[in-house]
Amino acid sequence: MLEQGETRAPDAGRRLPRSVEGPAINDTHRRLLDAAVRLFAARGFHGTGIRELATEAKLSTASLYHYMGTKELLLFQIMHDALERLLLAARIIEQQSPDPGVRIASLVRMHVITHALQRDASNVVDNEIDALEPAQRAVIVQQRDTYEAYWADAIAQGVEAGYFSVLEQRFTRLALLEICSGVARWFSPGGEQTLDQIAESHVDLATGLLRIPRERPEWASVVPTLNIHDLVEEIWAIRVRG
Amino acid sequence: MLEQGETRAPDAGRRLPRSVEGPAINDTHRRLLDAAVRLFAARGFHGTGIRELATEAKLSTASLYHYMGTKELLLFQIMHDALERLLLAARIIEQQSPDPGVRIASLVRMHVITHALQRDASNVVDNEIDALEPAQRAVIVQQRDTYEAYWADAIAQGVEAGYFSVLEQRFTRLALLEICSGVARWFSPGGEQTLDQIAESHVDLATGLLRIPRERPEWASVVPTLNIHDLVEEIWAIRVRG
Repeated sequence: MLEQGETRAPDAGRRLPRSVEGPAINDTHRRLLDAAVRLFAARGFHGTGIRELATEAKLSTASLYHYMGTKELLLFQIMHDALERLLLAARIIEQQSPDPGVRIASLVRMHVITHALQRDASNVVDNEIDALEPAQRAVIVQQRDTYEAYWADAIAQGVEAGYFSVLEQRFTRLALLEICSGVARWFSPGGEQTLDQIAESHVDLATGLLRIPRERPEWASVVPTLNIHDLVEEIWAIRVRG
Repeated sequence: MLEQGETRAPDAGRRLPRSVEGPAINDTHRRLLDAAVRLFAARGFHGTGIRELATEAKLSTASLYHYMGTKELLLFQIMHDALERLLLAARIIEQQSPDPGVRIASLVRMHVITHALQRDASNVVDNEIDALEPAQRAVIVQQRDTYEAYWADAIAQGVEAGYFSVLEQRFTRLALLEICSGVARWFSPGGEQTLDQIAESHVDLATGLLRIPRERPEWASVVPTLNIHDLVEEIWAIRVRG
């Protein structure tokens, strides 16, 4: 499904589960979601007013309420959609990478690339969880925990197999996620390094945290198993330029 | 000055430079600053209204404006004060730790402990820099860059001396800071681990990133050179319970 250079039948171009096609029901709704992501990232959820949202999305206040429901529901849709895509990507990586070291490297690449290319949505997910209503917050926390469990499982299996050496698996997982999510705070498309160089540098940081020697040969076998560009392009419906 | 168990003359209890005694001019101003830190951390700078600030600080709106100037100025004072303390601590650590490995370990301990104990202020510094007016933003960016330069220098010297092995010094510095700042996002005083255990786990993560073997003997000599609890207690005027 994700091999580079594969030819596809025209009708098979999108094989995403319905849930990751995103919450937008039409173009107007899409415009509202995009506007909300930009404003929530720039000014915070609490700092974004209804009028600003309507102006940014080029909607009347009445249309805005029709599509939005409440501001909290809009935030929930944005976070739920972002996490659903991350979860699908993590699931595919897990299925295709039995080796925990290879799996961590793929998770790092995927997380770094998507956080660089989807900075606003990533920062909203990271910073605004406490702005959600309790019932919706519980759903998002569950998604986030499930996503983190993919990382936790890879770490635990690598430790179990003797590939990784870590003192505290929880802190190691948090550290890996902090480092990779940090990219969304500083990435700029015009920077000195390509996205792939940044991703590979972060794989190296991850191997340091896990105390995997740089010369470990299995590590070099990551690329052929799964093309992360293709994976990200398919799940996020965006163009990746390494 | 910071040796454990040292006896001090009563009048020498506080030897901080005036600049790190904090921006508060009296108790009312202090109350306002504390209220602002709590609200900015919880609701974001843009999401915090003037009336909320007045209510939280138990001030009339007129008194609020008298002490605050503008909301941007209040944010500037909070950030400037937090960074000034970090800068003083980093300067003392640099002076007392010529070995770059020992210096990084001390920086990690200091950063982790202060970010755990000053969660709100730390998160405000990390998240709200873009809310500042341009002239004030330039001052804060300069402080932040100066603080990060202490970390960059230690990394560069350790690489130069052959103690550390890193591919990208900039990414390594960012990763170290992300990991240590991350503590402000999840630390809870009632957690399973003591603050010192958390700090030492983060020193171990740092040594992994820098590819320092756990058995490196110099590493064990960190504690006697500088007592980080005393340093933090003196500069932040808070009680540290490891």
